[in-house]
Amino acid sequence: MQVETILSFLGYTGVFSFAISGLLAAAEKKLDVFGGFIIAFETALGGGTLRDVLLNLDISWVERPLYIYIVVSGAIAALIFKPYIKRIRKTLFLFDTIGIALFTISGVQIALNHSSHWIIIMIFGVMTATFGGVIRDILCNEIPLIFRREIYATACIAGALCYIGLNYFDVSELMNTILSASIIIFIRTLAVIKGYRFPLLNNIL
Amino acid sequence: MQVETILSFLGYTGVFSFAISGLLAAAEKKLDVFGGFIIAFETALGGGTLRDVLLNLDISWVERPLYIYIVVSGAIAALIFKPYIKRIRKTLFLFDTIGIALFTISGVQIALNHSSHWIIIMIFGVMTATFGGVIRDILCNEIPLIFRREIYATACIAGALCYIGLNYFDVSELMNTILSASIIIFIRTLAVIKGYRFPLLNNIL
Amino acid sequence: MQVETILSFLGYTGVFSFAISGLLAAAEKKLDVFGGFIIAFETALGGGTLRDVLLNLDISWVERPLYIYIVVSGAIAALIFKPYIKRIRKTLFLFDTIGIALFTISGVQIALNHSSHWIIIMIFGVMTATFGGVIRDILCNEIPLIFRREIYATACIAGALCYIGLNYFDVSELMNTILSASIIIFIRTLAVIKGYRFPLLNNIL
Repeated sequence: MQVETILSFLGYTGVFSFAISGLLAAAEKKLDVFGGFIIAFETALGGGTLRDVLLNLDISWVERPLYIYIVVSGAIAALIFKPYIKRIRKTLFLFDTIGIALFTISGVQIALNHSSHWIIIMIFGVMTATFGGVIRDILCNEIPLIFRREIYATACIAGALCYIGLNYFDVSELMNTILSASIIIFIRTLAVIKGYRFPLLNNIL
Repeated sequence: MQVETILSFLGYTGVFSFAISGLLAAAEKKLDVFGGFIIAFETALGGGTLRDVLLNLDISWVERPLYIYIVVSGAIAALIFKPYIKRIRKTLFLFDTIGIALFTISGVQIALNHSSHWIIIMIFGVMTATFGGVIRDILCNEIPLIFRREIYATACIAGALCYIGLNYFDVSELMNTILSASIIIFIRTLAVIKGYRFPLLNNIL
Repeated sequence: MQVETILSFLGYTGVFSFAISGLLAAAEKKLDVFGGFIIAFETALGGGTLRDVLLNLDISWVERPLYIYIVVSGAIAALIFKPYIKRIRKTLFLFDTIGIALFTISGVQIALNHSSHWIIIMIFGVMTATFGGVIRDILCNEIPLIFRREIYATACIAGALCYIGLNYFDVSELMNTILSASIIIFIRTLAVIKGYRFPLLNNIL
């Protein structure tokens, strides 16, 4: 129970740090405050929203407005602390990576209730973690960054597959979350430090 | 009853004038007739469609094809009258502003049946009025105008909050619609005349 | 029954060739392998997904993961055979055209179960065949090609209207599919050979 509280709190920090990254992307594009809030909102909650729409579930932020307050807080925090954000870059990266990990796991967990096929479940896990960023880039009129440069797609795929595999062998939800999230955090951190990236299509064609 | 007929008629003029603005945007991008109709359609009905999808409702234009005929009429009117459209710019602005106001109110009214939380209800009101334009700009490969320049976001937010507040105090639906729509029309007209705009994120960061 | 097997097989070749065209579009934009697969997926299945969302149906690829394997096969085939793809351009065009035809018909058939209005049914037929390409172009940060240059919109519209008309006169589903699909294939091939295109909005305004 206490661990669940911690996980749920970490999930909120993920929403919070995605909102920050959305607002900063909007600022770079010289958007105004309205645009900044929409993009913060969408970056943080867009992946989960798409998942809920495709699985025909109630949209999570419609049911739990707390998410919206967290997005607004993240956006305001980004507005206030922008001058210092470079200095806290590593802290942000940490929150962001934890957020990605927990987004992936929560997407997998929800999809497990609605499909029995591993590839479908994996897709929803990866979608939950990545599509907020994809829609953010579309709204900012850019080709989605994650299609061009490895950021965290591999990490999400590996973590989702790990969760699905361990779930098949009846590993407990809590243990599974911790293990799979650790894999995501580990791979992403490694990829960023070592500069790993997917091969470009042009180079392998 | 007669007043409701008037409101419903004004709502249709909103769809009509959004379709005109969609077709004109498509013409500026040198699209062909097919593209023009799709963008007219989407500008007029995209915000409400997104709202219906997220609230898990039947899509309004699927249920009431009348909307589609109005869009087609608006698109054809824009094709025919384009040479004169500059001359009727003020009339168009009037219809457009009434449309925005009634889109916002109708979004709020529908959301009130599905959520009890003011921020959720407000989001759906603003979404109904603004997201057709957002999707139009994405289809035309532009950063959405409403993220960069105040057009009517503030007006929609104010009108939606007014409606939610008066609804809480049991003001009748009709009276509430008239008051809240008037606020939207007033603020938008003022914002356009005075050139008000949201601060850019760059300037406040 | 055997004919239905053939149709269903042809439908899969449509998904397959749409996945190829998606991956090739991604390669032109210098995306990486992850981006290539997402765009192949979305090009092949995006139109049907939008249709299913708007009609509030279960998403077809969530229910039948076979679609996903076909997309993956198409994407891998494009990766392997890219050097030879120019040489098999005509074969690809054939599969692509058959795919468009069967996408349109299947969209119409599904919509017929959920609406009785011809314009709604036609819209869903055309949407099923065209919106994968529209979303692909948005993800690749281009104005959708089909809004600028006749590719197959007319063919889809004609085929959808033909199916709806013959269905009204109780022509059998199989006969109707063959006739309507033939019209789509014929018009598209003619349009490509003769270079027909929709008038641009600029030229008629």
